Amino acid sequence: MLVAMTLDEQCAYLAKGCVDVVRADELRRKLERSRASGRPLTVKVGFDPTAPDLHLGHTVLLRKMKHFQDLGHRVIFLIGDFTGLIGDPTGRSKTRPPLTREEIDANAETYKQQVFRILHPEQTVVDFNSRWLGALGSEGFVRLAARYNVAQMLERRDFRQRFDAQQPIKVHEFLYPLAQAYDSVALEADVELGGTDQLFNLNVGRDIMPGYGLEPQIVMTVPLLVGLDGVEKMSKSYGNYVGVNEPAEVMARKLVEEFKGDDAVMWDYFTLLTDLAPAEVEQLRAAFGRGDLSATDLRFRLAGFVIADLHGAEAARRALDSVRRRQEIRINPGALVLEGGTPDVVVTTRVRFSEAPFSLPRLVTDLGFAPSTSEAARQLKAGGVRIAGDKVADLKWSPPGPGKYPITVGSRKVGLIVVE
Amino acid sequence: MLVAMTLDEQCAYLAKGCVDVVRADELRRKLERSRASGRPLTVKVGFDPTAPDLHLGHTVLLRKMKHFQDLGHRVIFLIGDFTGLIGDPTGRSKTRPPLTREEIDANAETYKQQVFRILHPEQTVVDFNSRWLGALGSEGFVRLAARYNVAQMLERRDFRQRFDAQQPIKVHEFLYPLAQAYDSVALEADVELGGTDQLFNLNVGRDIMPGYGLEPQIVMTVPLLVGLDGVEKMSKSYGNYVGVNEPAEVMARKLVEEFKGDDAVMWDYFTLLTDLAPAEVEQLRAAFGRGDLSATDLRFRLAGFVIADLHGAEAARRALDSVRRRQEIRINPGALVLEGGTPDVVVTTRVRFSEAPFSLPRLVTDLGFAPSTSEAARQLKAGGVRIAGDKVADLKWSPPGPGKYPITVGSRKVGLIVVE
Repeated sequence: MLVAMTLDEQCAYLAKGCVDVVRADELRRKLERSRASGRPLTVKVGFDPTAPDLHLGHTVLLRKMKHFQDLGHRVIFLIGDFTGLIGDPTGRSKTRPPLTREEIDANAETYKQQVFRILHPEQTVVDFNSRWLGALGSEGFVRLAARYNVAQMLERRDFRQRFDAQQPIKVHEFLYPLAQAYDSVALEADVELGGTDQLFNLNVGRDIMPGYGLEPQIVMTVPLLVGLDGVEKMSKSYGNYVGVNEPAEVMARKLVEEFKGDDAVMWDYFTLLTDLAPAEVEQLRAAFGRGDLSATDLRFRLAGFVIADLHGAEAARRALDSVRRRQEIRINPGALVLEGGTPDVVVTTRVRFSEAPFSLPRLVTDLGFAPSTSEAARQLKAGGVRIAGDKVADLKWSPPGPGKYPITVGSRKVGLIVVE
Repeated sequence: MLVAMTLDEQCAYLAKGCVDVVRADELRRKLERSRASGRPLTVKVGFDPTAPDLHLGHTVLLRKMKHFQDLGHRVIFLIGDFTGLIGDPTGRSKTRPPLTREEIDANAETYKQQVFRILHPEQTVVDFNSRWLGALGSEGFVRLAARYNVAQMLERRDFRQRFDAQQPIKVHEFLYPLAQAYDSVALEADVELGGTDQLFNLNVGRDIMPGYGLEPQIVMTVPLLVGLDGVEKMSKSYGNYVGVNEPAEVMARKLVEEFKGDDAVMWDYFTLLTDLAPAEVEQLRAAFGRGDLSATDLRFRLAGFVIADLHGAEAARRALDSVRRRQEIRINPGALVLEGGTPDVVVTTRVRFSEAPFSLPRLVTDLGFAPSTSEAARQLKAGGVRIAGDKVADLKWSPPGPGKYPITVGSRKVGLIVVE
């Protein structure tokens, strides 16, 4: 709880990283009134009812929800199961068959396992919009549809583009923004959050609420997160993501070693993936500018914040230590043996000393460093393989005795051969 | 029953007077199949659920429904109560408040009293579309709306005009044609009839039926009837109508004396307001062309057909006799006394012989032939008033004794003074 913040600080904390805030003055007034009355605001966010597999891109929105919770407000995690129960009513999309009630409930559980890594469970209400949209009935839907104009609908960019390009828009597509808007009426939402692509739909809710005797909701949107490649949006299909449920060590490796974004992307990550106040991000930026912090330091800092939020501080420390050690091994592969420790992220293969000599192409392939023994043999001959820091070129290897032998292939693949 | 007609005659009988038949070849095929199987066609026609007060303009459609019944088919008189129960969902029109179930049922009774003057009750099913549209529910409505494109909707002329003129079209207005189309699905209609203004909506039904595994319905439209003035469409608000429930005598007077249409309108009336086959209308037209029938004869013939259908042949004969006698009186006002009869359509005023002399301006005003006694006095002085065929100019009148005295003001106002 950060209720000790001034109203200005609250506004800045909530607006941090947002693309749209419609409207900031109304948000301020609602926050002021909430503080005076002690009545928390209702913050609504809609989610797709299909099976979720969340990554850091999704946490930008979850974190914004959490920011409201940090200030004492109530978040409705709204699962849009009404449309899920319908599926693709045109029957054209094979990927959108109707979901059963059981599937939707199972998906809700999957959501909870992931989102409660960010959200405060006790301030989160998980709800389903079929509760009220189903009850609307034929008549209610007609009445709802009477609240918006066709021309207003065609102001939505994707509708307009399809209409102008003479691509079909089915009439029911006009009903979905209205159904989403009605969710805000049913929940009497004070605020609705969403991605920038949701701006039109969120504003439909704003538009129709006064007709139901409600104050229009505040609409706030967050941007899409760029992926680890620094180019495309973060997405499973681009492989440039960090999954919310991934182990701390995998997260640490991805954020420190796989991140390819430039400085701008790094600062976006600080803004969108941490709870740092804008002023705190500015301090880091200044330290980086003075050279007090290196780019690598920044990655470690960022990874520390992100992993601590998702796995706890202790897990974050261990994961980062592991990455740090891997980096040291890479710089000086001998270090591992001198230290005597075995970071568990290092790939390990175990052999019996009694079975020496060993086929090195086989060991390299077992470690996953080469797709085949012939490719491993090629790398050996090219001199790309080192054991305990020494280049090896022979295909057979006889260790001096049982022990742990670090092996590197190229500059980035680090493994350990445990000879028992 | 006219099932002895050939298939060609059936097609001509049904298409007579229609503006659109979509499509004539399919209609023929359906008729053929129905005759072969003995299964009657289902002919659907939708009516507004608001209180009906039908005039001859409405009978054009009712008569087309009857033509199908004449050939042995089944008509669904569908009352669109689903939209009636909603009223104007925008709340803007004070003239379209939601109707109660009781009001709709009462209106249905009012319809029956009128439409069964034309339709065969035993081949008519009165139904209500709230039965299935209400049951569709939120999900069903979304699915239904997925069956049509926004661009297709905007092909409807009035939508396109409003869209181009930037006048608002509410989204629910797109749902009504789909709801009407779904009625055809629910009823498995073979044919839907309507006014020409309904062509688009009826075709939506045609369009969506194959998606439900049904053969597309045949769409047939009838034109608007021109009113007695021969200019505007027949309408209560223009005062140029003949009401379906009006007495036979009033109908006869309106059709014979008040009709101002030219020959073309008269032949439209024969086509649209009678069951004459096209060939029979042609025979009348030829007789008129040869001078065997006068324009007045045609009016009497037409009125005879129309009134006989609505009030029976005997009532039609009496009503026309009455009009004929009025016309004779007009030509020779003395005729009435000579005949000794008193047609009840003639306006009558009664006075006591003992109170003579009478104020003629007062009598003329009492008969409703002048708005005031001063205007009546003016007409008397101008020589426009005759009693028993003689011009009168004095303001006082002393009848020779008790009796019935026809009085005419100008050439068209004929009344009777009964001196007792």
